[in-house]
Amino acid sequence: MKIDLTPYDPKRRYLIGVSGGRDSVALLHLLLEAGCKRLIVCHLDHHLRGRASRADAAFVERLAKRHGLEMVTGRADVTAIAKKKRISIETAAREARYDFFAATARGKKCRTLFLAHHADDQVETFLFNLFRGAGAAGLGAMRPETRRKINGVELLILRPLLGVWRTEIDAYIAAQRMKFREDATNAGTIPLRNRMRHEIIPALEKWFGREIRKSVWRTAEILTAENDWLAGMIPAPACELSVAELRKMPVARQRRVIHAWLKLMKAPDAGFDEIESVRSLLPESAKAAKVNLPGDLHARRRAKKIFMESGK
Amino acid sequence: MKIDLTPYDPKRRYLIGVSGGRDSVALLHLLLEAGCKRLIVCHLDHHLRGRASRADAAFVERLAKRHGLEMVTGRADVTAIAKKKRISIETAAREARYDFFAATARGKKCRTLFLAHHADDQVETFLFNLFRGAGAAGLGAMRPETRRKINGVELLILRPLLGVWRTEIDAYIAAQRMKFREDATNAGTIPLRNRMRHEIIPALEKWFGREIRKSVWRTAEILTAENDWLAGMIPAPACELSVAELRKMPVARQRRVIHAWLKLMKAPDAGFDEIESVRSLLPESAKAAKVNLPGDLHARRRAKKIFMESGK
Repeated sequence: MKIDLTPYDPKRRYLIGVSGGRDSVALLHLLLEAGCKRLIVCHLDHHLRGRASRADAAFVERLAKRHGLEMVTGRADVTAIAKKKRISIETAAREARYDFFAATARGKKCRTLFLAHHADDQVETFLFNLFRGAGAAGLGAMRPETRRKINGVELLILRPLLGVWRTEIDAYIAAQRMKFREDATNAGTIPLRNRMRHEIIPALEKWFGREIRKSVWRTAEILTAENDWLAGMIPAPACELSVAELRKMPVARQRRVIHAWLKLMKAPDAGFDEIESVRSLLPESAKAAKVNLPGDLHARRRAKKIFMESGK
Repeated sequence: MKIDLTPYDPKRRYLIGVSGGRDSVALLHLLLEAGCKRLIVCHLDHHLRGRASRADAAFVERLAKRHGLEMVTGRADVTAIAKKKRISIETAAREARYDFFAATARGKKCRTLFLAHHADDQVETFLFNLFRGAGAAGLGAMRPETRRKINGVELLILRPLLGVWRTEIDAYIAAQRMKFREDATNAGTIPLRNRMRHEIIPALEKWFGREIRKSVWRTAEILTAENDWLAGMIPAPACELSVAELRKMPVARQRRVIHAWLKLMKAPDAGFDEIESVRSLLPESAKAAKVNLPGDLHARRRAKKIFMESGK
């Protein structure tokens, strides 16, 4: 397996998310092999698999104990959260997980978190976001190192397996005769995710050949880096947009500036359609000086500025 | 149908590619309706459908005649070209088509070409390139207006239907009771293209819902604009690359600069792997000062420069 853990000082403390599935068990062992002894094992029981969920938690607890590692277990009724917030199970599970990681980071005073996402996860996430419509600011592929602020906690998330394929992890697990919990991964509990893994990608491979995973992975890698580059070129937005300045920009830059502005203005949606709506105010020949946005907001052009109004 | 032909002066001469299929027949009628009278109908017989190919050509000839339009017919044995050049039928067909358009543009002294690609074509092309691995410089989505130099001829290619869906074209064709040649589109003769249209996208729609086409279309639109923006930021490459300058750049910019340099150096491949190979020379800690590239080329780092060597 091509995985380089040398950048990470083994004497430091790290959080690691462990579902009990093969990926996180493999990552835990790799970190132990690399000499990391002060790992804090974080396990969230999602309440999604009934009795099996509790058995997953018990398995991870034994694993942590055997290696003399600290362990934090959290519980979240993801189905109930999804229902209450009217979001998908997938979104609710992810939010619950990150809430849990942030709370644990705060409690343990440890801000670096290892996660076991691998190359196949990257491919699945990329296609998932592409088909569902990921919006205007990138296809949200994962990064090997990323900083993320959650509930006021600044987390550094490390994903050293992001270039490693599931088959390589399987081979490692088999060679080391490691135990793990089948289907304990969170992705496995999400129907559309499962379908992506077990139906959609295999069907695409049948049609296009085995290389499609690599093609998609490479594209995700290229676009993620380009997204970071572009994001770094967009200054913090002001409350008003200058029409003259926007007109001088390439379309892609206009879109990103407007996206940042919509976020600043707390527009409930800041997707492609909303951005294009605001862009329609730019041409000299624009028919309207006002466009409606979700949440009773309007973007209005007046005196060479675009600003936000609210109320009907 | 949302299509704006007002930017195009109807008094000017234009080439238009007409296969005889519904898309190009619809575009021809839309241009005629918009008052364009000096259209030059360009039809390439691909020799891919036997007798039907000749019937397509005859159909387009009658159509041109009925509207009093100039017509140029070309012939290319695409299967033979593909075999000889060892390229796919799809690539051979595209090359033959553009060679034909370029030759016609030169012969008729007319450099603007209308093509009937529509929103579904855009989605299919995007997915096709994604799954096949489109390389480092964008996913090659089509643009509504693009300049392209072919065999020394600078063509301006216009695709006014790029935002129009196949179903909308079908409805227009039905409402106007237009005749067209079933399956005359070039895409229809390419097995993997056909499969994309008739199996893969319908399967994805079944899994993800009807919106996937729109999601992919939007992504193609966003990424195309971002690609243009980024391409505009890369200066013309020199024969040597400065290691210090490259190191200061974001990864995505390094990749584009190296891509342009590989092209300048006539490297036979300038894909992701070759680019990453050259990038591996950049770190202070780089193990090697030389990497092999296809075509007996080597990129070598010496005295803070990267340059190309050839020969074994």
